Amino acid sequence: MRFSCYFLARININQNMLLENMVEFYDTTLRDGSQAEGVAFSVEDKLIIIQELDKLGIRYIEGGYPGSNPKDIEFFKRAKSMTLETATVVPFGSTRYPSFEPDDDPNLSALLDTGARIVTIFGKTWRLHATDVLRVSAEENLEIIESSVRYLVENGREVIYDAEHFFDGYTDDPEYAIETLRAATTGGAKCLVLCDTNGGRLPVEIQEGVKAVMSSFPLPIGIHAHNDAGMGAANSVLAVQAGANHVQGTFNGYGERCGNANLASIIPTIQLKLGIECISETQLQSITSVSRIISELANLPHDERQPYVGRSAFAHKGGLHTDAIRKNRRTYEHIEPEKVGNTQRILVSDQAGRGTIMKKIEKEYPDYDKNSPQVLELFNRLKELESEGYQYEAAEASFELLTHRVFNGYESFFEHLGFRVIIEKFTDLTMRSEATVKVTTPDGTTTHTAADGDGPVNALDTALRKGLEQYYPALQKVRLIDYKVRVLDTKAGSGSKVRVLIEASDGKNSWLTVGVSENIISASFEALIDSFEYKLHKDKYSVN
Amino acid sequence: MRFSCYFLARININQNMLLENMVEFYDTTLRDGSQAEGVAFSVEDKLIIIQELDKLGIRYIEGGYPGSNPKDIEFFKRAKSMTLETATVVPFGSTRYPSFEPDDDPNLSALLDTGARIVTIFGKTWRLHATDVLRVSAEENLEIIESSVRYLVENGREVIYDAEHFFDGYTDDPEYAIETLRAATTGGAKCLVLCDTNGGRLPVEIQEGVKAVMSSFPLPIGIHAHNDAGMGAANSVLAVQAGANHVQGTFNGYGERCGNANLASIIPTIQLKLGIECISETQLQSITSVSRIISELANLPHDERQPYVGRSAFAHKGGLHTDAIRKNRRTYEHIEPEKVGNTQRILVSDQAGRGTIMKKIEKEYPDYDKNSPQVLELFNRLKELESEGYQYEAAEASFELLTHRVFNGYESFFEHLGFRVIIEKFTDLTMRSEATVKVTTPDGTTTHTAADGDGPVNALDTALRKGLEQYYPALQKVRLIDYKVRVLDTKAGSGSKVRVLIEASDGKNSWLTVGVSENIISASFEALIDSFEYKLHKDKYSVN
Repeated sequence: MRFSCYFLARININQNMLLENMVEFYDTTLRDGSQAEGVAFSVEDKLIIIQELDKLGIRYIEGGYPGSNPKDIEFFKRAKSMTLETATVVPFGSTRYPSFEPDDDPNLSALLDTGARIVTIFGKTWRLHATDVLRVSAEENLEIIESSVRYLVENGREVIYDAEHFFDGYTDDPEYAIETLRAATTGGAKCLVLCDTNGGRLPVEIQEGVKAVMSSFPLPIGIHAHNDAGMGAANSVLAVQAGANHVQGTFNGYGERCGNANLASIIPTIQLKLGIECISETQLQSITSVSRIISELANLPHDERQPYVGRSAFAHKGGLHTDAIRKNRRTYEHIEPEKVGNTQRILVSDQAGRGTIMKKIEKEYPDYDKNSPQVLELFNRLKELESEGYQYEAAEASFELLTHRVFNGYESFFEHLGFRVIIEKFTDLTMRSEATVKVTTPDGTTTHTAADGDGPVNALDTALRKGLEQYYPALQKVRLIDYKVRVLDTKAGSGSKVRVLIEASDGKNSWLTVGVSENIISASFEALIDSFEYKLHKDKYSVN
Repeated sequence: MRFSCYFLARININQNMLLENMVEFYDTTLRDGSQAEGVAFSVEDKLIIIQELDKLGIRYIEGGYPGSNPKDIEFFKRAKSMTLETATVVPFGSTRYPSFEPDDDPNLSALLDTGARIVTIFGKTWRLHATDVLRVSAEENLEIIESSVRYLVENGREVIYDAEHFFDGYTDDPEYAIETLRAATTGGAKCLVLCDTNGGRLPVEIQEGVKAVMSSFPLPIGIHAHNDAGMGAANSVLAVQAGANHVQGTFNGYGERCGNANLASIIPTIQLKLGIECISETQLQSITSVSRIISELANLPHDERQPYVGRSAFAHKGGLHTDAIRKNRRTYEHIEPEKVGNTQRILVSDQAGRGTIMKKIEKEYPDYDKNSPQVLELFNRLKELESEGYQYEAAEASFELLTHRVFNGYESFFEHLGFRVIIEKFTDLTMRSEATVKVTTPDGTTTHTAADGDGPVNALDTALRKGLEQYYPALQKVRLIDYKVRVLDTKAGSGSKVRVLIEASDGKNSWLTVGVSENIISASFEALIDSFEYKLHKDKYSVN
């Protein structure tokens, strides 16, 4: 069972006893996360993310900063009508501007206007910020904090108070830092969140600060860490070990500069390693998928090396490691990947020996061993392709096709006999892309199709489908969902070899294929063909 | 002044006094780092990296695993002939195989064959690994460790002993874990490195383990952390605070699964925050560049959110933040970026107000203010372009051109009147890419040029140069060094809009430009044109 800060303060029982088994998560992906370079969420994106976070069991979702961003006003209107299981959507703002009284401050009004019952405001803890940024005296700053919190409380709101730069302020002048918290408490704040806003404080300093505040205030204490020294997750977990029971962070660690503390790392650590059950086992199993959905909506490549939720998090490449995990998974896995909805992967690379290949193919070809001629052929073929620039670590669908081709003389579903693409940009700046494609299907029919497209890859895709869909209607469901291009040998300039990765989906599953060429169109075409072949192959064997 | 482990043990003075101001770094990018998904270094790459790490002041560089990878044998031959300032190149291997005696063990022989004076071997600390992986008894494992270390020492080597899975083993059976270290010490190891191989241990456990070992052994103690719970850097720094004085890690945190502890984060933290001077100030200033060079050679995009060394590490986007740092940089920067060779950046984004734009243009246009019509026009134009998919956070050269175009009626160096590209793949699988381009130069001459290329972008690039180089010979020096494609709206499949980022270089400087279109060729052409324009513009104003 989880309680809100408010409820906690009210029931007024021994904090430490209660908190031992309780940590609540406060997600600020939509606000602090969108300060990250390259991140921008539309209102639609935000609403989808809220639903995902709610299903995951997040307690608070900071939705935006209505006083600073007018777009957020519309968002809060729409968020208010959502039905959520566990989450409360919270607006964020600052204490009042020095030149306004609380009741005419535009920032506080914007918070009230959202209609949210719980609001978060930040105030200044560090003298430097009071004097250099707000340009007020230290005393005036205390009054600003107290009056802002009080105004919101008097208007029926519960206030979570973010003590910006708490740890910098505490290092600079511990007494003043505590005084700012006292001002917030006197104003009626229900939760004090200690922020390492600049992200440069070390674990030891975080623990000291949390303990000092714990001993002075009978309120729930939160931590808001950043990652500027690479310690965002560690600082958050150590704060919990020191007694904090409210953790703020963002998914995938998005945020200003090096980002915020990553909830996708912190939640599994607190749950699986500190043994504090914050969300259910089933909810925890969805964390990999939630993290990926947020990457998708942020339109950023998912950080695959991320703890717990990255594709590489349980991927084994070294020969010794892959050998050992075949004997016992615990030897090189700190947790069972299934607990966070992730999976073990064995990578194919030039470091990998035939043992690794065996582990990868053993399910489909259980009768072969390391010394089978097919295994040796596959091994050599892989080495050759890798030296040409192919990589199968991501493109597992292409790897599977390659394996079938080597093992049992895989028959292609079609053969392509060439293509032509013409891209023209006219003097009036209009464009045209036209592709022609010739393919033969196994019954010997050759079709020669042509199509225009929004670009050369689209034109090729369309022309190829025209030729194939009458034989293979299942291809109508396949769509390209991601497309990546990597220049392999930068020394050759625009004539460099490129590797194209295509991710395709049929609505149910998605798969990755690869193509390599000096010609980006040819590399794309190759990956496109593999993505169609893979779909047809999978369908055939799932039906039979 | 820095000492090797060996020297330290020999001089035998009070460790704690001496160690207070000394930490030595041990880089394993070339060995453990190359276990990362997608990372592979050639021998040439390795030699360049060694030189960079040496200049940075790294004490030990683990070069490879000759017993496991035959390619590493050639590498050690070549590395031996290098002249290095501070670094020693160290081979890595395991204790002997259970079925061999030390003097006929192929792995130990491979270590000796490298001719290196200092070698690192790892042994098993965790009972589970002795029994389930090596398949020997716990006692036999102790004998394996001791005899392997002794054999190397008797052959004149100094041995750094990596206690694999130390923290897992210590948690499971502390006495046995300590016994394995005693076996290594009895064998003659000069440094005991405690490894969190699976990367899942928490800071508190790391500190406990380090302290326990410190109190039992009068040897230098090292830490080797991984990042599976996102705590690699924190665990390393906390180990140093607990007394460890040897830190192993990789650059950019490359490594198996979620990677190793990132030296690019740890070195600045230890130097700037713990105040332990390990390398010189000048060396520290080169750490951003070393980290980038290693990304380049690993052929991976540099992680721009990396602490200290990422492009985003000191990039400010939120309006409040950019406003505050104009008043005082300390308000939102935990260190001065110059200390690690990085720089402050102000980002342009839809969150950024006119204040941010002002900060970005104030150097070149000091006479304008927030309310100038040009500033307003630029602001509106940016919003419009960003909604079309342009992003200027990375493409600063395109942003600069846009600014000039808005501010002073920038005159283009050429005007393009259209292009045509034909890409054909014939039945015999040969390919041809041909481009024609029409451009007009300011003197009114129109040239219509054609060229073949290795792909459509190369053909366009070549045809465009053909038309321009007679007017602008400086373009001969410009080459495309990186090329990125991002699909913007995945819902439209292969007809999605794409954003192309091109990085060009003239050998001295490099710059990034952007193009957006549904047509990948058109987006590439647009970015290509900006990259040429930018070069010509820069040259003009640096000459005048």
